[in-house]
Amino acid sequence: MRTVNAIAATSATDPLVRTTIERRDLGARDVLIEIRYAGICHSDIHTVRSEWGPVTYPLAVGHEIVGRIAEVGADVSRHAVGDRVGVGCMVNSCRECEPCRDGQEQYCLGGATMTYGGVDRDGSVTQGGYSTHVVVDEDFVLRVPESIPYEAAAPLLCAGITTYSPLRHWKAGPGSKVAVVGLGGLGHMAVKIAAALGAEVTVLSQTLNKKDDGLAFGAKHYYATSDRDTFKTLRNSFDLIINTVSASIPMGSYLRLLRLDGTFVSVGAPPDPLEVPAFALIGARRSFAGSNIGGIAETQEMLDFCAEQGIAPEVEVIGADAVNEAYERVLSSDVRYRFVIDVDTLR
Amino acid sequence: MRTVNAIAATSATDPLVRTTIERRDLGARDVLIEIRYAGICHSDIHTVRSEWGPVTYPLAVGHEIVGRIAEVGADVSRHAVGDRVGVGCMVNSCRECEPCRDGQEQYCLGGATMTYGGVDRDGSVTQGGYSTHVVVDEDFVLRVPESIPYEAAAPLLCAGITTYSPLRHWKAGPGSKVAVVGLGGLGHMAVKIAAALGAEVTVLSQTLNKKDDGLAFGAKHYYATSDRDTFKTLRNSFDLIINTVSASIPMGSYLRLLRLDGTFVSVGAPPDPLEVPAFALIGARRSFAGSNIGGIAETQEMLDFCAEQGIAPEVEVIGADAVNEAYERVLSSDVRYRFVIDVDTLR
Repeated sequence: MRTVNAIAATSATDPLVRTTIERRDLGARDVLIEIRYAGICHSDIHTVRSEWGPVTYPLAVGHEIVGRIAEVGADVSRHAVGDRVGVGCMVNSCRECEPCRDGQEQYCLGGATMTYGGVDRDGSVTQGGYSTHVVVDEDFVLRVPESIPYEAAAPLLCAGITTYSPLRHWKAGPGSKVAVVGLGGLGHMAVKIAAALGAEVTVLSQTLNKKDDGLAFGAKHYYATSDRDTFKTLRNSFDLIINTVSASIPMGSYLRLLRLDGTFVSVGAPPDPLEVPAFALIGARRSFAGSNIGGIAETQEMLDFCAEQGIAPEVEVIGADAVNEAYERVLSSDVRYRFVIDVDTLR
Repeated sequence: MRTVNAIAATSATDPLVRTTIERRDLGARDVLIEIRYAGICHSDIHTVRSEWGPVTYPLAVGHEIVGRIAEVGADVSRHAVGDRVGVGCMVNSCRECEPCRDGQEQYCLGGATMTYGGVDRDGSVTQGGYSTHVVVDEDFVLRVPESIPYEAAAPLLCAGITTYSPLRHWKAGPGSKVAVVGLGGLGHMAVKIAAALGAEVTVLSQTLNKKDDGLAFGAKHYYATSDRDTFKTLRNSFDLIINTVSASIPMGSYLRLLRLDGTFVSVGAPPDPLEVPAFALIGARRSFAGSNIGGIAETQEMLDFCAEQGIAPEVEVIGADAVNEAYERVLSSDVRYRFVIDVDTLR
């Protein structure tokens, strides 16, 4: 075991504090990563505050992790010391079920081991990326292309893949009309990726406050959902809607924005069920679907795609001691568009 | 105009009564059908009782219509006097929008003209099949294969196509596992058609009362949804679930019966929105979709398929004066599996 610096939650209500956590000794297929940056995802906040279920404290969260490989286990073959790498939301899975064999480890029937708050192979609770080092099985480690700056690469590991995967699965591309609901950490990546895939992108945001940004990210149209006319004007318009908002929204109104055979995909989930009027689905054979991050191979594909296309998240780099303040700003949507912790401030 | 015998509703609360209704004079592209049988669909009851919105009375319902062509307009080219034909839920559409051009008239963007209670081209309210004759544009008239008895053909025009269309759209066939929720008029056709398509079919019914029937129709498995173990046993099992039940059901429990990328399709709609926990979708990229009858070409394909496969609805033929009693029996699920009115009793 090795003891490393981290920032962790000690309860559902107290601020995160500087502390130390333990990392396991390197197994034969493990790599030790010296973390450089860790993104702050809204899920981190839900988790540390026990909003998604009970949590074992202390817990360091963070599942948008980038850094350099410092050591490798004896049997590691896919990575080498010095490589620029990343770790996303998963650090393991059963590898035997059908989804795992198909490279869709995020849908592992036994349950993928999440990067933090999951139960690892040795029975310990996994600890996330708000920390100086992490030990991960090499199969769950991604190569970060040289052309993507470290700090910008971090949010790709969750916000990037979470939006890339449904855009690819539901075939966003030339000729398709895609709407993105919400222009936050996930939403701004959905816009950039959908535009890079060739789709005609519309942002549906509460207000027009971020319109200039949305258009700069590649959206062709931008509408305020606080304006009821938006739902009349855009009825039957989209092939695909990516919903990045985790609050309850009026599903009937949103579903009716889809064309025949269109799909509304939620990548976040409000704690309460959504009220779905079946007629809104039946009237145009519409679908309401959900999508959960992406598989490891697909995450690598996304990183390579972003490098080729020259797209990356917009980030605001902060020091470790600014995390609690950053959480409050995430909750009030006061971030353009992702906070990334400079982990050197933890050393 | 011609005056024909019918049974019609005169208010939302009174029983249906014998009366007469008007049929328009034959247009150049119209056919006059002498109706032989008309099926009783649960939608008929919802409609006459104003449960789906306001209704203009008197109204003759019925959208599962079969009979023989008695006269044809001057420009009719697809049908001839004496042909065995059927009419389903639609009698017209705009024919210009993208869905219409694609043969998906049921999703006409201008709204297809429904067989009863719709507004026809001349501004009159359409009247359905509980009647001795009907005048219909030839494009919305189906050929009924000789091998399907008249009375058994009637329910295919709604119950048949409403289940055939989603089974085909979501590719039920050899290797796929399909569950059918509810074994009523639609459900029993869903089982027969899915089995004929080669899928492995499971019935999910409230009780095991109709188990022998379900297995005889082609289901391989039959489970009671009143038994909570059913939802544990069958978790992650199905590629496709066809929901024929129009009541509110616990959507989270049903969605979790789907495998990765599975789809739950509602073909009926409860008046209240369904409560859908987004996590149940996200956890295995599941979809909740809706499907509305089928297009005209697809309805013909379904009739030909049923003839080839030798499958037909189970019907109980009644006289016109038994309709009110039949409605009560439909509401108490006391029909195996579809009432069909012998329209000769109206002459």
